[in-house]
Amino acid sequence: MTDRVSLSEKFARFTEHWRPRVVAELNGQEVKVIKVQGTFPWHHHEREDELFLVWRGRFRVEFRDRVVELGPGELVVVPRGVEHRTAADEEAELVVFEPAGVRNTGNVVDATFTAPMGEKL
Amino acid sequence: MTDRVSLSEKFARFTEHWRPRVVAELNGQEVKVIKVQGTFPWHHHEREDELFLVWRGRFRVEFRDRVVELGPGELVVVPRGVEHRTAADEEAELVVFEPAGVRNTGNVVDATFTAPMGEKL
Repeated sequence: MTDRVSLSEKFARFTEHWRPRVVAELNGQEVKVIKVQGTFPWHHHEREDELFLVWRGRFRVEFRDRVVELGPGELVVVPRGVEHRTAADEEAELVVFEPAGVRNTGNVVDATFTAPMGEKL
Repeated sequence: MTDRVSLSEKFARFTEHWRPRVVAELNGQEVKVIKVQGTFPWHHHEREDELFLVWRGRFRVEFRDRVVELGPGELVVVPRGVEHRTAADEEAELVVFEPAGVRNTGNVVDATFTAPMGEKL
């Protein structure tokens, strides 16, 4: 559990978009890495707040009434219950903090975007 | 709550070492930024796991039986109950992820190092 985790090393080990991988666990929460490109479906998480930190590239979180644009070293918290979708025009690399056992598409099940939960890297 | 947070901007706003500032809150957890230099006292946290992610510089977490050295983009989780101390030969900038209400010196109260809890930035 006390091993060093390198984000760059983790990102180098996969190529798929929108498929989060767990790289650390603590206090019932997970730290995940994810590569994104394109636009994710609208959804919300009933009981979980979600944090996105951009590691590389540009990324945005769209709410129904505004858009938050993020670059490297910038983060945003999406509160539980708030509808949102995420998007990146070019590939971006993100770190996500959220409780263990969250479905990436929240209240939605999507044949393309719903990813396995708890996949470790 | 859905405002963009820039880590660089946050780090530019203070200079003290070993004094964590909360920059985001979610799911009962806090994301903190901290500048460190020198060596912190040995301590442990009874009930909280703690994550350190290096943003700038070099940093190490010393356990009684080993040392984990970290550079930018590298992280480690210190499990609850495990004695440790943190150190940096030159100034380093860290992001910390842990439950709200954690005392930075854990089971120890130190006149120099124990910092205010929940200080926001």
